[in-house]
Amino acid sequence: MKEIIYGKNPVSEWLEAGLEISRIFLMKGNIHNSVVPFVKKAEQQKIMIKYVSRQELARLAGTENHQQIAAEVNVPDYWHLDGLLAKLKDEKQAPLLALLDGVQDPHNLGAILRSADGAGVQGIIIPKDKAVGLKPSVVKASAGAAAYVPVVQVVNLSRTIDDLKKEGFWFFGTDQDAEMDYTTADYKGKSVIVLGSEGKGMRRIVREKCDFLVSIPMAGKVNSLNVSVSAALLFFEAKKQR
Amino acid sequence: MKEIIYGKNPVSEWLEAGLEISRIFLMKGNIHNSVVPFVKKAEQQKIMIKYVSRQELARLAGTENHQQIAAEVNVPDYWHLDGLLAKLKDEKQAPLLALLDGVQDPHNLGAILRSADGAGVQGIIIPKDKAVGLKPSVVKASAGAAAYVPVVQVVNLSRTIDDLKKEGFWFFGTDQDAEMDYTTADYKGKSVIVLGSEGKGMRRIVREKCDFLVSIPMAGKVNSLNVSVSAALLFFEAKKQR
Repeated sequence: MKEIIYGKNPVSEWLEAGLEISRIFLMKGNIHNSVVPFVKKAEQQKIMIKYVSRQELARLAGTENHQQIAAEVNVPDYWHLDGLLAKLKDEKQAPLLALLDGVQDPHNLGAILRSADGAGVQGIIIPKDKAVGLKPSVVKASAGAAAYVPVVQVVNLSRTIDDLKKEGFWFFGTDQDAEMDYTTADYKGKSVIVLGSEGKGMRRIVREKCDFLVSIPMAGKVNSLNVSVSAALLFFEAKKQR
Repeated sequence: MKEIIYGKNPVSEWLEAGLEISRIFLMKGNIHNSVVPFVKKAEQQKIMIKYVSRQELARLAGTENHQQIAAEVNVPDYWHLDGLLAKLKDEKQAPLLALLDGVQDPHNLGAILRSADGAGVQGIIIPKDKAVGLKPSVVKASAGAAAYVPVVQVVNLSRTIDDLKKEGFWFFGTDQDAEMDYTTADYKGKSVIVLGSEGKGMRRIVREKCDFLVSIPMAGKVNSLNVSVSAALLFFEAKKQR
């Protein structure tokens, strides 16, 4: 889907990450010096520039603080669970998915997508409410992985878990109070790795549906890791076992 | 060292993370409704509140956009390399350190400190220039780990590597072009895990000083991980070997 980003830094970062831009919007009339490099880059990368009025730019950006520049970028569409499951049926290996129960920080979701791509996790399931979804800051933090890893957004996470259990998936929840070391669990079957939200972890209703609860042994004084770090440790442990 | 943070969200997040606040500053006179919860929380946590003029609050915050609230927080001090080495001499196990060649994002440095605490990494070395240092956003992202993991800030990273080599340390640089799988290296001796900056990786001068270059095998289309994720995979691999 198309989304508008605005401001010099966001547009510049998007350009430098080599992510897809369909159009750049600049203000008609006297172009500020600081915007000139964008014109050159857009020409190099053959991105269409559209010159619009100040009012039109403010309307597109949804704010007056657009620094005379906006861009229309391509944010990947969500997948339907049925579509993802159909795609997985064609693959030889038992599928490996992740389910995020309320991850809110775009940096974390982006890093998780990037790790999922690197570890061969074939899809990410997220809830529609109280969680960050696919948006420009996530795509940027994912270093482009958001375009490759299917993301399914569901209204009722609990029912989705039930549906996947009927399909034969096992659920591995990460919970720092669990006794089972994450490296001793067996992720070789149809597996879903479940991660909770920053700060609060999994909700009780989700935790209770997990088949296994695993923890990451901690040496120091802080008792948990950043959620994108926990995700990566489990993803790469599963990759190693497969 | 003492630092000032300002604005409702930053102060609120700092309070909720249970991080150290020495004083909260509010504006004299008519207190906005949205600031009242802070007064209650500060009283509960026995944090001193100081009422100051609008001008004084702007001076403390360094901006007019303080939303009527600022706080003096405690950010850990840097360690000297000599002090860290002296501390490590008292420990039984061979020391494990990390060196970050230009990590710039506060989220990443915070997550790396948190993972270091969890994996038993005993110190982090960072350069003074072109890198994020200990500041409130880093301490917050570290979930408090910044108070436990010594951070050494050096002017000349290259010379620090030479000094540590003389002390018998081995350097393991992460480089996605390296052929050696990170799980096959031996981190049981005196080890320093080296990570490059977001986007650019290690500088050539640092890479050339590494004794081993290791990579994390990637399954997908993106060819590297978020730096805090790479750091955690290496830290926990070293922890497993020890």
